Amino acid sequence: MLLLPTLLPIAITDHSVKKNDTTSNGTFSQLDDLSMGHIGQKSPRLWAYLIAVYWVSLVTYFMLWKAYKHVTELRATALMTPEVRAEQFAVLVRDIPPPLDGETRKEQVDSFFKAIYPDTFYRSMPVTDNKKVNKIYVELEGYKKKLVKSEAVYAQSKTVANPEGVRPTNRIGFLGLIGKKVDSIEYCNEKISELVPKLETEQKVTLRDRQLPSALLFFTTRVAAASAAQSLHGRTVDSWTVMDAPEPRQLLWSNLSLSYYSREVRQYVIYFIVALTVLFYLIPIGIIAAFTTLKNLMKLLPFLKPVLKIIEIRTVVEAYLPQLALIIFLVMLPKLLMFLSKAEGIPSESHAVRAASGKYFYFTVFNVFIGVTIGGTLYNTLKEIEAHPNGTIKLLADSLPDSATFFLSFVALKFFVGYGLELSRLVPLIIFHLKKKYLCKTDVDVKDAWSPGDFGYATRVPGDLLVITIVLCYSVIAPLILVFGVFYFGLGWLILRNQALKVYVPTYESNGRMWPHLHTRFLAALLLYQVTMLGYFSIKEFIFTPLLIVLPITTLIFTFVCRKKFYGFFQCTALEVAAHKLKETPNMEHVYRSFVPPSLGSDKLDDDQFGDV
Amino acid sequence: MLLLPTLLPIAITDHSVKKNDTTSNGTFSQLDDLSMGHIGQKSPRLWAYLIAVYWVSLVTYFMLWKAYKHVTELRATALMTPEVRAEQFAVLVRDIPPPLDGETRKEQVDSFFKAIYPDTFYRSMPVTDNKKVNKIYVELEGYKKKLVKSEAVYAQSKTVANPEGVRPTNRIGFLGLIGKKVDSIEYCNEKISELVPKLETEQKVTLRDRQLPSALLFFTTRVAAASAAQSLHGRTVDSWTVMDAPEPRQLLWSNLSLSYYSREVRQYVIYFIVALTVLFYLIPIGIIAAFTTLKNLMKLLPFLKPVLKIIEIRTVVEAYLPQLALIIFLVMLPKLLMFLSKAEGIPSESHAVRAASGKYFYFTVFNVFIGVTIGGTLYNTLKEIEAHPNGTIKLLADSLPDSATFFLSFVALKFFVGYGLELSRLVPLIIFHLKKKYLCKTDVDVKDAWSPGDFGYATRVPGDLLVITIVLCYSVIAPLILVFGVFYFGLGWLILRNQALKVYVPTYESNGRMWPHLHTRFLAALLLYQVTMLGYFSIKEFIFTPLLIVLPITTLIFTFVCRKKFYGFFQCTALEVAAHKLKETPNMEHVYRSFVPPSLGSDKLDDDQFGDV
Repeated sequence: MLLLPTLLPIAITDHSVKKNDTTSNGTFSQLDDLSMGHIGQKSPRLWAYLIAVYWVSLVTYFMLWKAYKHVTELRATALMTPEVRAEQFAVLVRDIPPPLDGETRKEQVDSFFKAIYPDTFYRSMPVTDNKKVNKIYVELEGYKKKLVKSEAVYAQSKTVANPEGVRPTNRIGFLGLIGKKVDSIEYCNEKISELVPKLETEQKVTLRDRQLPSALLFFTTRVAAASAAQSLHGRTVDSWTVMDAPEPRQLLWSNLSLSYYSREVRQYVIYFIVALTVLFYLIPIGIIAAFTTLKNLMKLLPFLKPVLKIIEIRTVVEAYLPQLALIIFLVMLPKLLMFLSKAEGIPSESHAVRAASGKYFYFTVFNVFIGVTIGGTLYNTLKEIEAHPNGTIKLLADSLPDSATFFLSFVALKFFVGYGLELSRLVPLIIFHLKKKYLCKTDVDVKDAWSPGDFGYATRVPGDLLVITIVLCYSVIAPLILVFGVFYFGLGWLILRNQALKVYVPTYESNGRMWPHLHTRFLAALLLYQVTMLGYFSIKEFIFTPLLIVLPITTLIFTFVCRKKFYGFFQCTALEVAAHKLKETPNMEHVYRSFVPPSLGSDKLDDDQFGDV
Repeated sequence: MLLLPTLLPIAITDHSVKKNDTTSNGTFSQLDDLSMGHIGQKSPRLWAYLIAVYWVSLVTYFMLWKAYKHVTELRATALMTPEVRAEQFAVLVRDIPPPLDGETRKEQVDSFFKAIYPDTFYRSMPVTDNKKVNKIYVELEGYKKKLVKSEAVYAQSKTVANPEGVRPTNRIGFLGLIGKKVDSIEYCNEKISELVPKLETEQKVTLRDRQLPSALLFFTTRVAAASAAQSLHGRTVDSWTVMDAPEPRQLLWSNLSLSYYSREVRQYVIYFIVALTVLFYLIPIGIIAAFTTLKNLMKLLPFLKPVLKIIEIRTVVEAYLPQLALIIFLVMLPKLLMFLSKAEGIPSESHAVRAASGKYFYFTVFNVFIGVTIGGTLYNTLKEIEAHPNGTIKLLADSLPDSATFFLSFVALKFFVGYGLELSRLVPLIIFHLKKKYLCKTDVDVKDAWSPGDFGYATRVPGDLLVITIVLCYSVIAPLILVFGVFYFGLGWLILRNQALKVYVPTYESNGRMWPHLHTRFLAALLLYQVTMLGYFSIKEFIFTPLLIVLPITTLIFTFVCRKKFYGFFQCTALEVAAHKLKETPNMEHVYRSFVPPSLGSDKLDDDQFGDV
């Protein structure tokens, strides 16, 4: 969902305009009558608003509590499945201490776990450093694809007029642009027959010599695996660290072997970087904008000089160059956050998506919601905040009513345009047809181009959470937003349900582990709402404002209680759930093989593959 | 160790005197030359002191790290014992949800755990409400003891002159003072034969009808028990909560069946009460003192009037009445803290002792160390602190040098008098001889009177930690304290080692779980030292004072790292350790029986004892 970043620049640039429009625009000024802005200071009518703040908060607690219970049941049902799912029999162990002399990793891991689980331990698979073997594998797969493509092109060229056809050729130099011209089919066949033995040798070397200090363990029962994933195995927490194995398809292999300290340090460093990004995201953009002035541009790219001398173009470029930098940065942001999340050392794709989504939420709330509300560049405001830290909430509360109209239209735009695009899938359709026409040669290519991908939680979730934040924060000041909110989420339920069932293809399954993450952000939004209201009522000089102090405290306690009560089951599998009967005895060999990375798998794979050859 | 409370009033009353003595007393003024008090403001010699602060901190980190590693090894060795220890095969499960209709607790627990651990689950023992049966049991045991005693008295009375002897008699009314006179031996025999069947009936009723929602589980292997104690069993954290079973001898039965929420709420309520006690302990004493003025005393106890009219006695009583209240309160404090700790719902004696000890430490540091240093009643100071919260550290730093001499003598007194009493065991010896002469009738009684008890960690540990705090805080200001510290802990090592090996009898074994607790308090003392030094240097207007800010931050990080790295193994048993071989196959029936409370145990105990009779 790239909608948000595209809306963002509009949000920031149009904001001042919209603000001034409020009085002149008929429709919106009518809406404004419903809002709290018109209520005088110390008015007794403020009581109604105060009760509304309580009502909204209590309903939110109730719904969140019910939802957490419901999701717990859903997760339990998913985990109790009678189907054999490979990851439920596997455990990931990291931070294995150095083996004794003359002992391989595999021997070490096996002897350690066989002593602890004599009956249920099946076998282990040491994680290996697959960089080299992956490179050869990718090259080989590339040539295989190219061969199929070349053969398809050759077959198509065999028309009635030319029954022999034209054998496709390509150049073997840089990007196929320079170098010797060769027959594609012959060349690919040659390369494949050259790479296959190379891959096999490399596989053997990797399995034997590149074992890393982490491994996947396989157990014969779900209970044994679930229990092993939760127990302390080593005496210190930085040795024999265990956790649930992620699904094979979402394993981030390169993160598996990071040491405990490196993971911890990375995590804190990245939290720090993200905090800086959230707080000061305008600074790098400013720097880029400073460097990309027209003058510098003309110096760096002299061939643009004649174009830029035309006064119309010059004006446009001069006006939009900083905006351009902003847009590029905002489009890049989710990718940056995803990169940062993966760099934390997280072992699974779904966890990385959750981490990125969480970071993006705080970014949007801080920069879009608070940023737009307070207005102006955040950097100047920060200086003010630094000088009067207690004034922040008042500042926010003070600016809140002015932005009501802007956020009403923001939510409306999001569901009209956003859901329109979502349902019609216009952009992917255009891209598909372009791809089909110019790039696809074989049926596989066409299928790949058509594939819709997954939901893209990393940006979709923070987008929806931003709407939640907006709806909550304006629910009392401008209750009309509730109607927009109902439309947004009502339509969203219908449309995304359709998309989930009939369009998107999930790339992984985390069994509801996204929920606690959503729950926490929900409560963060609620807390922001309650604190803002506290500021707002105190601006109105309502003497019963201190009654509202109860709410943020309740929210913190509610968060704490929910976390304590429910979160444990989302961190690991309850044994009660894992103990449910399976439909059939699991084929352990099959379970084990599903975790072998494709670059190491081969039909010749035998039992001693990871053995001490 | 009741030494500290007895020293406390001296500390508080003598302080003002000692302070003024410093200049007049030759010995102590000489010691004072070594201290930092004489160094002028902004003096370059402050550099040496600053380096010393760093040196002390670094040595402390190093020693603590080494000690944590060492204690981890000791704990591992203790847990790896080849002996069969009953608690290593047991798990305590609490918060069992309500059973289905027509299902007993035992059936419910057994079917739940048999499904999860089909191979390693041995049997369960539901916790029962033993109040009634305990009462009868205690009564019965009392009569049994009395019978033995009466028989001994009767046997002793058979002298050559009176070969028939005198049959001992007693009155059956209140406290044996009023009522009918009966023959003791006959009466006891009668009562015993009456109570034995009553106990048996009550045992049956208890086992059948008073099963509570918690149980002890027994597993056939140590690994299964250790793993079960660490795993999540229910979907929410407030159902099927598991933990390591404490040793049978230190189980606090009445706490076992408290529900999750009651435990949580109790914990926070008690933390709050303790915080209030630590902060405002002078207030109740003040109130008591106000009520126990001479005037009130004469009104309440009029028979004292003539005595109190004698002017000498009157003066003494008037002067010491508030002190008396203080002493009584301080003597009661450890018992109060122990009571509060047990009321938290802690399931084992050793854990309650740790909790009480932790509370007492904060009390002594806050009231003795900070209280004495700042001087005067704490209550007045609190008002000042409330007005200028940032001034606290400066206030403390400012008053620190003045109290140096006092604390030097405090530590000296503690090791001269304290260890003298400890080694000679004078007080227990006197008590023993008094008991032997007037109370003991049988050999068992004499043995009981001689029994030295255990170390009494709940008061001994905070006492030693207070010395650590004093030594650390004065280590740079008045380095002479280090000599006293070395003497205190050096002598302590020799003496307490002797006492541990040859005198005291441990009442429980927690396998080193006290250490993390000590470690944290050690670091709290270090933090206090570093913060005080920061204040002290800034009073000296030393411009490089900000260099010291690094230290408190390092301490916090060090605490965090130690906790993460080592604490897990102190919370639960690492499976690596539990997997060590045993000398023999455990006799599971024996393991199970060792957990049966004495009031429920009988020779007729059969396998179906806890069954659905």
